[in-house]
Amino acid sequence: MVPHLVTALNGPLLDLEKKILEATPAIERWFRLEWQEHTPPFYCSVDLRNAGFKLAPVDTNLFPGGFNNLASEMLPLAVQAAMAAIEKYCPDAKNLLLIPESHTRNVFYLQNIARMMQIFRQTGLNVRLGSLSADITEPTPIDLPDGSQLVLEPLERSANGRRLGLKNFDPCTILLNNDLSAGIPAILEDLNEQTLLPPLHAGWALRRKSNHFHAYDEVVKKFAKMVDIDPWMLNPYFAKCKDVNFQERTGEDALVATVDTILAKIRKKYKEYGIKEKPFVIVKADAGTYGMGIMTVHDSSEVRDLNRKQRNKMSVVKDGMEVRDVIVQEGVYTFEQINESVAEPVVYMIDRYVVGGFYRVHEDRGVDENLNAPGMHFVPLAFAQQHAVPDMKAKPGTAAPNRFYMYGVVARLALLAASLELEKTDPNPEVY
Amino acid sequence: MVPHLVTALNGPLLDLEKKILEATPAIERWFRLEWQEHTPPFYCSVDLRNAGFKLAPVDTNLFPGGFNNLASEMLPLAVQAAMAAIEKYCPDAKNLLLIPESHTRNVFYLQNIARMMQIFRQTGLNVRLGSLSADITEPTPIDLPDGSQLVLEPLERSANGRRLGLKNFDPCTILLNNDLSAGIPAILEDLNEQTLLPPLHAGWALRRKSNHFHAYDEVVKKFAKMVDIDPWMLNPYFAKCKDVNFQERTGEDALVATVDTILAKIRKKYKEYGIKEKPFVIVKADAGTYGMGIMTVHDSSEVRDLNRKQRNKMSVVKDGMEVRDVIVQEGVYTFEQINESVAEPVVYMIDRYVVGGFYRVHEDRGVDENLNAPGMHFVPLAFAQQHAVPDMKAKPGTAAPNRFYMYGVVARLALLAASLELEKTDPNPEVY
Repeated sequence: MVPHLVTALNGPLLDLEKKILEATPAIERWFRLEWQEHTPPFYCSVDLRNAGFKLAPVDTNLFPGGFNNLASEMLPLAVQAAMAAIEKYCPDAKNLLLIPESHTRNVFYLQNIARMMQIFRQTGLNVRLGSLSADITEPTPIDLPDGSQLVLEPLERSANGRRLGLKNFDPCTILLNNDLSAGIPAILEDLNEQTLLPPLHAGWALRRKSNHFHAYDEVVKKFAKMVDIDPWMLNPYFAKCKDVNFQERTGEDALVATVDTILAKIRKKYKEYGIKEKPFVIVKADAGTYGMGIMTVHDSSEVRDLNRKQRNKMSVVKDGMEVRDVIVQEGVYTFEQINESVAEPVVYMIDRYVVGGFYRVHEDRGVDENLNAPGMHFVPLAFAQQHAVPDMKAKPGTAAPNRFYMYGVVARLALLAASLELEKTDPNPEVY
Repeated sequence: MVPHLVTALNGPLLDLEKKILEATPAIERWFRLEWQEHTPPFYCSVDLRNAGFKLAPVDTNLFPGGFNNLASEMLPLAVQAAMAAIEKYCPDAKNLLLIPESHTRNVFYLQNIARMMQIFRQTGLNVRLGSLSADITEPTPIDLPDGSQLVLEPLERSANGRRLGLKNFDPCTILLNNDLSAGIPAILEDLNEQTLLPPLHAGWALRRKSNHFHAYDEVVKKFAKMVDIDPWMLNPYFAKCKDVNFQERTGEDALVATVDTILAKIRKKYKEYGIKEKPFVIVKADAGTYGMGIMTVHDSSEVRDLNRKQRNKMSVVKDGMEVRDVIVQEGVYTFEQINESVAEPVVYMIDRYVVGGFYRVHEDRGVDENLNAPGMHFVPLAFAQQHAVPDMKAKPGTAAPNRFYMYGVVARLALLAASLELEKTDPNPEVY
């Protein structure tokens, strides 16, 4: 189900956690049955926020970029999960083409690519890198700090135009690690003979956070009923605001009203559960990523009082894409800390398997702020070091509970939501 | 594909090994396609013998009893593989009934059972133990050295006779870890509503080694053609001898003739490859296990010259089952050593995944002898400790090759053979 990793938590098990740990057999059975109906995305990472009274996914990334941050002891798990995924999509595959982000010489990102190549090579595939960048016109080596090397190669369509590959390399499967924020390049269109993973509509050119969280609502409703908890414990309120232009200050009234509504709903819940914290919301671009176009708001007046710099920041996200629609989402405090810095867990999955995780840590950010920002660093989650494997049925005191389990559950709820989201937003359901 | 474990080998890569490592993508693809056609046994362990010029499985166990000998770091892999297996057979399972060997208080075996229970609990199942022993008439606790406890419970059929379970425990899946050497107990018959794994005909009451090695012949023939090697490199010669009675000395002439034939064939191969070792064969019961009813023979005269003690030893195997048919199999030297003791690798698989392995080591046995005998001990294979993950494409010298890979390949060939064997020997193919 979920490997036992060492989390930063060390207080007693909280009610929510206890309830989820106790329902393990029902939960695992439920997931098995859901995966009979829905195909999980090929891979996925989920950012979680743990406020103790509430645990929620705040970002579900379908182009995970931090495989290099997983503990190296997790690799065999990732390889085994990748085998299962490959077997499902393309058992007769020999060649895998991986398409990374363009225009990046970010060493951490390149190490992520190197790690992914290792994983897929270990499943027994030949793996090569194809670049969407027009600057790559011939095989271009890039040296990595560990002395190894990546080679970016120019993509090319086959003579008949039906297939995508590299020179002398015809892949069965094409794996995107490029989130397509800049739009869908023509060279990726109409690939009906090869498996493109994830599909084009998973990219930010088409994907919208609001669709994801709508699907998540649905998933959590079912799940919460089964485990008998308030779905709110796992699900932040959210609402979408269309046509907001921070520069021209259009759509501002609607945004202020939405912020007020969500804050009021949170206040009511905090009162119901006797939570003393101050409610806040996160305003973020409906189609944004990379931690860009995100702000924390405690009072709707803050939306009106943005200064020019803040307005600029909220207007444009990755690859210069303009922000138009935003979502207002209940903010979830993160009460986990590593060395007195605020931390949030990130869970990595391949196919339907949790293959590892790490903490995103930021020294200069508060418990109510986005941590996905320059200055963050990563702390891999290691396997719990114990003689015995954690075992709920073990003699009391002989085995620690797997606190990472709940993270794996909530991350998989987001994974399932992504699966529903991709089904619903598929422009060609019959090809899917 | 196969985790990178530290083997006892440290010489240069041998030709056979090199060929297999180089063919990795083709091999993994081949296995993926084979598993589309054939369902692997639920779990399996394979004993291998590595003579350098030759690597072969000598025993394929469908009721593996050494999960406790795997390094604990392998457990997450085992859990993930078990999840995949459960999902295939019974996605809606909540309860798993495990049936261990009867009449054993062997602490090592009980630790194997405890380890298996941990693995299956971690897949999210409720696991309890049902005993076939008539002595278990009520829940019977057994203390283990680590302070934990197993509880054996009496099996019972449901009121309508259609289901098997324990008091207040109705399992969806029943997992046998009892090899049924003593015959098929009535209480296990006609269970059409529940999944019994592995099926009854996998037990030694019905199973025959000769069927397995016939299926293995077929598998290796196909595989060797693909990788372009002599199938003999992976496959010992064998022949079956029916109606041998060591006590009454009937069938002895036929056995002597068979031994001569196999020895002659080996001699020819040794000559072809310039191998200087002395050929030998292993004579063993066609339906035996536990390392019982096995002898090493260098010359057919040894078969005639058996003394009374040796005749007794060859006549009876586990649970008093009488030996009637035997197989004569080409002996494979094991040239692996740990601390100057002869060692042979044992590879563990769940579903189609290699989940770990260990060395069986025997201080008092020679390179041409059965090591599965009192006095043996086990050395778990640990993950290779390296900064980088082994990677065939890495800069030369920066990563060690995964020498365990070949073991994983040959073990999976035996697994595939077991799958074919169970298909062919299934008494109710339509129910299967």
